[in-house]
Amino acid sequence: MGKRFSKDYQVTYYDCDAQSQMKLSCLVGIMLYYSGIQCAELGRPDSYFHALGLTWVVTNYEITINRMPTDNEKLTITTEAKAYNKFFTYREFQVLDEKGNLLVTLETTFALMKLADRKLGSLTAELLEPFEAEKVNTIKRAPKIPKLTAPISKSYEVRYSDLDANQHVNNTKYLEWSMDTLGMDFLTSHNITYIHVRFVKEISYGQVVECLADIGENQTIHQILVDGTLHFECAIDWKKRGNHEI
Amino acid sequence: MGKRFSKDYQVTYYDCDAQSQMKLSCLVGIMLYYSGIQCAELGRPDSYFHALGLTWVVTNYEITINRMPTDNEKLTITTEAKAYNKFFTYREFQVLDEKGNLLVTLETTFALMKLADRKLGSLTAELLEPFEAEKVNTIKRAPKIPKLTAPISKSYEVRYSDLDANQHVNNTKYLEWSMDTLGMDFLTSHNITYIHVRFVKEISYGQVVECLADIGENQTIHQILVDGTLHFECAIDWKKRGNHEI
Repeated sequence: MGKRFSKDYQVTYYDCDAQSQMKLSCLVGIMLYYSGIQCAELGRPDSYFHALGLTWVVTNYEITINRMPTDNEKLTITTEAKAYNKFFTYREFQVLDEKGNLLVTLETTFALMKLADRKLGSLTAELLEPFEAEKVNTIKRAPKIPKLTAPISKSYEVRYSDLDANQHVNNTKYLEWSMDTLGMDFLTSHNITYIHVRFVKEISYGQVVECLADIGENQTIHQILVDGTLHFECAIDWKKRGNHEI
Repeated sequence: MGKRFSKDYQVTYYDCDAQSQMKLSCLVGIMLYYSGIQCAELGRPDSYFHALGLTWVVTNYEITINRMPTDNEKLTITTEAKAYNKFFTYREFQVLDEKGNLLVTLETTFALMKLADRKLGSLTAELLEPFEAEKVNTIKRAPKIPKLTAPISKSYEVRYSDLDANQHVNNTKYLEWSMDTLGMDFLTSHNITYIHVRFVKEISYGQVVECLADIGENQTIHQILVDGTLHFECAIDWKKRGNHEI
């Protein structure tokens, strides 16, 4: 329904992990960047919203992974803003390989944050007109993320390089920390099949985050706390890798 | 002297820091990646060297910065392998902006590491023939990096995402840690004009690195130690930023 935008991407060495598989945080970063290119091309660059005292933030997303891209692969990334309501816009992404196989889908919820008080701004038809997204009255309810039972814990100090131009920790870092909490043995023996993340609060420079994780056979549950307050949670579904499988 | 290779790059949002300036570690990663593309195009991809039990590693480099690229800028990156001797090859990079202004130069020393014992392999005319680099007998001596006097110290635990396909910490991470050690106030009030780094030993998953830094007015000196052993050192020259300067 929304206006579609497509752009190719070739996976680089520095996008990949030790097993030459693309890092998920990297892929998410590129997808979100591509939606920014569409916005600019449709006359809605970041500067348009900044001039109105607004900036886009991701509030939650779900990713379904059939196969992660590998080093050097040529991808086509497609995105469209499908629908919006008073506060949220729902944007979808697809990642295809050279043969047209669907590798990854990402369903995101974006909101406009007011720069002055960092609260949510209203989405109007004028702001979103060029995207041809459908106006809906319902607010999508994302699946609930299970509570933690007996989590492991790891702390991370926010680095200056974790921040983006919004002066807060970039959304891809939450994912990086959560995955790192699981350790190399787990990460090299499992592949992600589905992930659902929810951003609750921004994280700033100087803060120390506590990453909690419950590790099950096929699912891990994650929370990121700052001074005991929830800032982020996610659930990740995993499949054990075969012997020679990346 | 060497065969030249040029490729464009457009700076993305996710390449940039909180002040919309490109991260140096990002720029270095892209430059090194582009030299890999030239190698592949000249019939010397990584797989060619891997089949011989060899892999390229960077042993040291010097960067001179006139101005760091900013978000969305269109760059042209040029590289050539200028010369080589028995163990080292000297490769140069230039980063130009759209108007042809020279923004950054990078002079690197590469060596071939034997995968079996991780020691240096010999560079032969056959291995390097397509690069048209000049064979020299001298080994370039990089300027000495000053010793530390009263350093501050910060520890970092290696993350799985810090590793690259060589199964060791990617060279750009050393730079990221060293810069992070200086803290946000310093990083947002200074620009790098020159940097010289020397890689001494690989760093692996599971290790905790100690980053030491001496902070002077115009220069910072850095060392990275693991269990008291030097793995990396660098010297960075800085210029204080003007009020409205990025």
